[in-house]
Amino acid sequence: MAAKVVDVHTHVYPPQYVSILKTRSKVPYVRDTEPGKPSRLIILPGEDDPSSESTAKGRPIGSEYYDINKKIEFMDLHGIDISVISLANPWLDFLDPSEAGSLAKTVNDAMNDMCHSHKGRLFAFGALPLSAPTEEIVDEVKRLAKLKYMRGIIMGTSGLGKGLDDQDLDRVYQALEETGMTIFLHPHYGLPKEVFGPRAAEYGHVLPLALGFPLETTISVSRMILSGVFDRFPNLSVLLAHSGGTLPFLAGRLESCILHDAHYSGPEAASASRRSIWEILKTNILLDAVVYSGLGIRAAATASGADRVLFGTDHPFFPPLETNSGEEEEKWLSVTTNYKAIQDAFGPEKDQAAAVLGGNAIRLLNLTTD
Amino acid sequence: MAAKVVDVHTHVYPPQYVSILKTRSKVPYVRDTEPGKPSRLIILPGEDDPSSESTAKGRPIGSEYYDINKKIEFMDLHGIDISVISLANPWLDFLDPSEAGSLAKTVNDAMNDMCHSHKGRLFAFGALPLSAPTEEIVDEVKRLAKLKYMRGIIMGTSGLGKGLDDQDLDRVYQALEETGMTIFLHPHYGLPKEVFGPRAAEYGHVLPLALGFPLETTISVSRMILSGVFDRFPNLSVLLAHSGGTLPFLAGRLESCILHDAHYSGPEAASASRRSIWEILKTNILLDAVVYSGLGIRAAATASGADRVLFGTDHPFFPPLETNSGEEEEKWLSVTTNYKAIQDAFGPEKDQAAAVLGGNAIRLLNLTTD
Repeated sequence: MAAKVVDVHTHVYPPQYVSILKTRSKVPYVRDTEPGKPSRLIILPGEDDPSSESTAKGRPIGSEYYDINKKIEFMDLHGIDISVISLANPWLDFLDPSEAGSLAKTVNDAMNDMCHSHKGRLFAFGALPLSAPTEEIVDEVKRLAKLKYMRGIIMGTSGLGKGLDDQDLDRVYQALEETGMTIFLHPHYGLPKEVFGPRAAEYGHVLPLALGFPLETTISVSRMILSGVFDRFPNLSVLLAHSGGTLPFLAGRLESCILHDAHYSGPEAASASRRSIWEILKTNILLDAVVYSGLGIRAAATASGADRVLFGTDHPFFPPLETNSGEEEEKWLSVTTNYKAIQDAFGPEKDQAAAVLGGNAIRLLNLTTD
Repeated sequence: MAAKVVDVHTHVYPPQYVSILKTRSKVPYVRDTEPGKPSRLIILPGEDDPSSESTAKGRPIGSEYYDINKKIEFMDLHGIDISVISLANPWLDFLDPSEAGSLAKTVNDAMNDMCHSHKGRLFAFGALPLSAPTEEIVDEVKRLAKLKYMRGIIMGTSGLGKGLDDQDLDRVYQALEETGMTIFLHPHYGLPKEVFGPRAAEYGHVLPLALGFPLETTISVSRMILSGVFDRFPNLSVLLAHSGGTLPFLAGRLESCILHDAHYSGPEAASASRRSIWEILKTNILLDAVVYSGLGIRAAATASGADRVLFGTDHPFFPPLETNSGEEEEKWLSVTTNYKAIQDAFGPEKDQAAAVLGGNAIRLLNLTTD
């Protein structure tokens, strides 16, 4: 039997969630445009900026965003056996505190039901009502841990509003550690648009998506490291989107700066008892393989170990390109690029490639329904 | 004869430049503190923020910052045969336009004289009077190209004030391309401090230096790529500080986002005639080896080719750590870490390690005095 392929980075907007977005008129929201055309999803901060010259705000939201059968078709087309689905950004971050808790239950139950309807093919990361009182967040962690198909939670970098180095998150981290639920840390907020310069609009979404997203992730997990989250919760497991943003590449510089800054100003972060970045990478961090290059996969596997890198697609984003004849290619370039990256990274080391493609996810996320 | 070791990333503040900084009272400036203690250099944006709780603003500026003999001692201690010295950030960016041109000549001539006083051991990257009228900038490029020891220019990401994707820089790029002068692109401005969150001050300089700097470089060179600088100037040569910031790791994602964003909104940047990121990396980009990890060197060498990665130290920054007995270690950890990274990256491929350590710099920057 061929080794299984598992996609750990694949998003869905359950119809219940789309309904919420349709009632809204500011980011994030879904709006209907011309009759007969698909609704458009506006999710990125600034995408709705009235000063923007863009005439095509957001992106078309087809059935692949909310119809789980489209996910299964996509999986079959690309040889994916199992997907660990997650709500896409910005999750539930924007909800009014009074309704966040109950809507979280609704959306998470819908995700779990989707998994049940395709038993063995689907597992899920839930979403937390982060705007709700901490007690409700912790309760939802504990409830999710008991749902059959939930293996963790997906979370942005905002946390309770002050980032993931906020001490008030400790109760949430504690509940996640105790229940063995993995955090899938995913970007959404990017970087302030001024960092991309006065010509940024000419480059479409390229700079925010290609650089802002991974830099956001890198900053966020670095703040977790510096504030000692992994010292206080040594068994916490965090899966980083997009192969850690840029953490594998910058880990050496980060470690060096911590050591040297102590020399200048002696912050607690450099105390003798802290765990090094390299140790944290190999014990607490999982990296997805959504990095679009062999050298990126190779760097990720060197940083965290080839037994901690997990294949992903980012479906339904980055859909197939149009061919010169104006038709869409059947297989998605974004997926074939990431498949090829794994082959490039490991070459003849087929065991490592197989582990990244599926074995690691099955083992680390316990993807069985027995 | 053993292969030579060349340091392409090593800074100096000539006494003429320190004098300028001593006359100033806002960043960048040099101030004297307690009698008998070294002056302190305040160069980073925000380092002088009056709301900051820091009681030790800036860093002590010892003779290793301005005395070229200290540079030679450092080179001898670490087995470095040749250094390509450059003015440290923020270079001449802050000068009044009326004086920038003449001060640039003064500082550049001082750098060239230092090289002459240690003939064969030192070459230099000059600095441009970027606040001056463009004509003066272009003239200084042409003048520098005729100085015996100048091999390029060091530049920040601000350019004429609007970044390096500013069309008004084309005349400067043209002059650099025509004279075969390499741009050493180096960060200084970092990212807005709010991206590091409300607890950033607790982490000292770690986040701005470890993440802000490389992200600034990555954004800047990405803007050059997207605006077509390398399409208009296909022979332009750009040496990126800190192994490209994060460009090697993010190149795959950047290329993918360009291809996919065209699908959404069709920016010119994705036109069929553009050169891919991978092609630009292998023809226009040089990467220093200041990345503090073997996986970083490996990623850099895969991205641009092992024949385009160049050893560096970042001297006099990241000085030796104190030992437990309170004494400074003799060899600098920042240097030994980067030496070790090259060994880790190439293992038994000693030719590649030797090329990165010196051969590439000698060939690419023509480091001979004949």
